[in-house]
Amino acid sequence: MSKLLIVGTVAFDAIETPFGKTDKILGGAATYISLSASQFGINSGIVSVVGGDFPKKYLKKLNKRFINTDGVEIVENGKTFFWKGKYHNDLNSRDTLITDLNVLADFKPIVPENFKDTDFLMLGNLHPTVQMEVIKQIPNRPKLVVLDTMNFWMDNTLPELMEVIAKIDVITINDEEARQLSGEYSLVKAAQKIHNMGPKYVVIKKGEHGALLFNNGNVFYAPALPLEEVFDPTGAGDTFAGGFIGHMAKSGDISFENMKRAVISGSNLASFCVEKFGTERMENLSQEEIQKRLLQFKLLTQFEIELS
Amino acid sequence: MSKLLIVGTVAFDAIETPFGKTDKILGGAATYISLSASQFGINSGIVSVVGGDFPKKYLKKLNKRFINTDGVEIVENGKTFFWKGKYHNDLNSRDTLITDLNVLADFKPIVPENFKDTDFLMLGNLHPTVQMEVIKQIPNRPKLVVLDTMNFWMDNTLPELMEVIAKIDVITINDEEARQLSGEYSLVKAAQKIHNMGPKYVVIKKGEHGALLFNNGNVFYAPALPLEEVFDPTGAGDTFAGGFIGHMAKSGDISFENMKRAVISGSNLASFCVEKFGTERMENLSQEEIQKRLLQFKLLTQFEIELS
Repeated sequence: MSKLLIVGTVAFDAIETPFGKTDKILGGAATYISLSASQFGINSGIVSVVGGDFPKKYLKKLNKRFINTDGVEIVENGKTFFWKGKYHNDLNSRDTLITDLNVLADFKPIVPENFKDTDFLMLGNLHPTVQMEVIKQIPNRPKLVVLDTMNFWMDNTLPELMEVIAKIDVITINDEEARQLSGEYSLVKAAQKIHNMGPKYVVIKKGEHGALLFNNGNVFYAPALPLEEVFDPTGAGDTFAGGFIGHMAKSGDISFENMKRAVISGSNLASFCVEKFGTERMENLSQEEIQKRLLQFKLLTQFEIELS
Repeated sequence: MSKLLIVGTVAFDAIETPFGKTDKILGGAATYISLSASQFGINSGIVSVVGGDFPKKYLKKLNKRFINTDGVEIVENGKTFFWKGKYHNDLNSRDTLITDLNVLADFKPIVPENFKDTDFLMLGNLHPTVQMEVIKQIPNRPKLVVLDTMNFWMDNTLPELMEVIAKIDVITINDEEARQLSGEYSLVKAAQKIHNMGPKYVVIKKGEHGALLFNNGNVFYAPALPLEEVFDPTGAGDTFAGGFIGHMAKSGDISFENMKRAVISGSNLASFCVEKFGTERMENLSQEEIQKRLLQFKLLTQFEIELS
């Protein structure tokens, strides 16, 4: 069975949407990625850090889904990373109200011995120096390295980010970030420029408009499922990334054809994530529901043409 | 062979994009719709109005593509409808600089005798009262009636527009307009409400993000082809509508399965339209180019899943 190592934040989130608000609940990129990837029944582990205030039951929740948390450092006298955000009425944009880095500020990641031979590596959105530290601790290059990042690191730590980008296989960013990183408005041209920075595969996330997968000349478009209700978009991008790498790790097949299915899987899982607050929906999701919705993706996109 | 009647503007456009500008060139909804539909080799005719200033060579251009212009009234002492617009740098938005209705202000449409038995009717974007006048002049209901409209008519002539909407089969509008018309943010809910207003089929155009086709419980997503260059978006929506109804008219098959192909055809033709200024690309387009790009749409969206 393939091993998957995930580095990213494990955090407290407080979320406000037009439909309600939460106190501090379980959040963080690594949390969403691992919950999503765990749907594929693979051997996964997290590298992260939390404070002494982090409930053990949250880690147990992950362990119950066969997510190894040996790599989650607990700083007993520190506080867990906290993010508070409020979504606008259209749910397409949000204001960050609080970002308390806390124990994340001095985080030195340590890859556990039993994950140094990981086959798949997912670098979740956090400081590129931390992402690079993890890459360096893995002696043999994994089969596939996927990077998620955001505009904040492009604005503040671009040289460090570019070094990480040069070392990975797949980058996942949103359309605005692809434009910022490349300086190109056309996403086709943006993907070409980003290929030249290192990644053979460029995944551009467009939220409710789906995602594009570029591999040099090839393009694939995975739609987002049109939904009646979006309740809370928090974690949708991470859930997408977790579904993507989870599918890849389960199959072990890194062909472009299979990567198409991985993008669909990511889009599929993200469509569940937004249906409830926080991680709730991802913690209560059956294989039957996942398979049924995969079929909806098929119906949504497949057509026959007669070429004359 | 099916007959297709198109009502809409035939106009002069002056366009400015970041890549250049034009003087008065051939434009108008009916022009783009008919040029696009003419790719399907069907028997089509236009109902519209122009002034004495309108060059006969423009009408001949259309006739050469077997588009009947007997229904284009020429008001010798009047001036042709004129629109001038300037696109912003991202080409996703534009300012209208001039709208001179001219002969369009008093337009009373007259359906030519030989199109009163039309099988397909395309009501291009213009005053809903004109659209209704055309519907009334056709004694036997066509096989399929498609309506294109825009926010301007929702703002200014909503009661008249609602009467037209109640009488048609397919409505094509963009995402913002679907939200305005329905009062729903979710496009799934918006489509449901619009179904209740009359149309069995709702096509929601999302520009560079493609188009959604709704038919009660069914949804289909046609992506836009990711392009390296968009030169001039003018007429893309009309070209989409022309490709849609052109495909329907050619096949004569009004099933949902076939409508999927029609949406793809519309998206395919629109992808050409934006590559050059005005109608230039649509006037010089080969069947080989169209077929080749259809194949690209197939590659862009098709995937295999194994359901476990």
